[in-house]
Amino acid sequence: MRSAFLPHSVRRLVNELTKLPSVGEKSAFRLVQHLLSRKPEEMLALEEALKLVREQVGLCKDCFAISENELCIVCSDQKRRTDIFCVVEKPVDVIALEQVGGFSGKYHVLHGLWSPMKGLSPEKIKFKELFSRLEASHQNHAVSNHAVSNTIADKVTELVIATSATVEGDATAFYIAENIAHLPISVTRLAQGLPKGGELEYADEVTLRYAFEGRKSI
Amino acid sequence: MRSAFLPHSVRRLVNELTKLPSVGEKSAFRLVQHLLSRKPEEMLALEEALKLVREQVGLCKDCFAISENELCIVCSDQKRRTDIFCVVEKPVDVIALEQVGGFSGKYHVLHGLWSPMKGLSPEKIKFKELFSRLEASHQNHAVSNHAVSNTIADKVTELVIATSATVEGDATAFYIAENIAHLPISVTRLAQGLPKGGELEYADEVTLRYAFEGRKSI
Repeated sequence: MRSAFLPHSVRRLVNELTKLPSVGEKSAFRLVQHLLSRKPEEMLALEEALKLVREQVGLCKDCFAISENELCIVCSDQKRRTDIFCVVEKPVDVIALEQVGGFSGKYHVLHGLWSPMKGLSPEKIKFKELFSRLEASHQNHAVSNHAVSNTIADKVTELVIATSATVEGDATAFYIAENIAHLPISVTRLAQGLPKGGELEYADEVTLRYAFEGRKSI
Repeated sequence: MRSAFLPHSVRRLVNELTKLPSVGEKSAFRLVQHLLSRKPEEMLALEEALKLVREQVGLCKDCFAISENELCIVCSDQKRRTDIFCVVEKPVDVIALEQVGGFSGKYHVLHGLWSPMKGLSPEKIKFKELFSRLEASHQNHAVSNHAVSNTIADKVTELVIATSATVEGDATAFYIAENIAHLPISVTRLAQGLPKGGELEYADEVTLRYAFEGRKSI
């Protein structure tokens, strides 16, 4: 896309779009071409939607899921259980689990995974915040703790680590489990095995081993 | 993505993004997640790039390629030949051909193809404009023609139809050829055959037939 033919503003937009994940120069230009083929009002609608998200959406101060308010919908919901937490990697994972339904506790979004290859996590992974939340729940409830929101009412007794079934996901789970070993919290992970509809013939060896080891009586 | 968890502004942006080609709800949300993980300035840069394109980019009044000015870079270039035209389907095709280089004439962007399945083209396909340009070039040059820009100086003697090698591309080529049969213009199409590096074994039947029929002495 170094063509001299490309107008400056188009080149600039293509450049901005290629910063998005899995958007190359060709597909960026195809997006621009599509935008130009629409009415200007429709392009304006996209700009305004971007602006609104930029101005209004941040992270929940307790669980770091995306939220328009200080606390997200889950954290501000008084009916959710506060004795069970679910740890996920990304904000989108909260949405995936909420769509499945069934989990009635609180979340904690790490915004990254601990990678054994890259060494200890950078500061932006929300481990410290997780450990604070869990420890605070086990402190004397009579003493008001200003560092942590009062939405944590019960002692956390179970922590479901819902990270991906990858090396980083495993490493993150072990890292968390190690760091809260001193607390009376039972740490669990999502089951690993054959995906629903998955044929045994096509399962990889590791999946098959996990599925076999985790066999259940019917 | 109907989750009640999703903030209103995020839902709105996801909705706008899914209007783009080949962006589904999941990938739209992944884009939003990525945007939220960046600094607000970077998101603002995308908004501004969109605004600039919306405000500054239109179509060249002669050839309908994208342009920031009334005439595109090719049409306003006095060194380009005006006796040979190249017809393409989309603005991106002009950029592809300009990157290859070698063509020194003018373009005409149709903004669509004639589809035998859907019947005659809607108004927005720039056939009428193409025929006007070609006819104007063959009219008496002494008479000033106000309908067509004076960038057309010579009589057009060759029209290269560079539409895709699809049913619609073929139909469009024949439709154009039929409609300018009364003008002394030689109409050509891009060669069809084996793509460079393509193995004969894997070529489809139609491609192979074209390649065989179009064989050249070496």
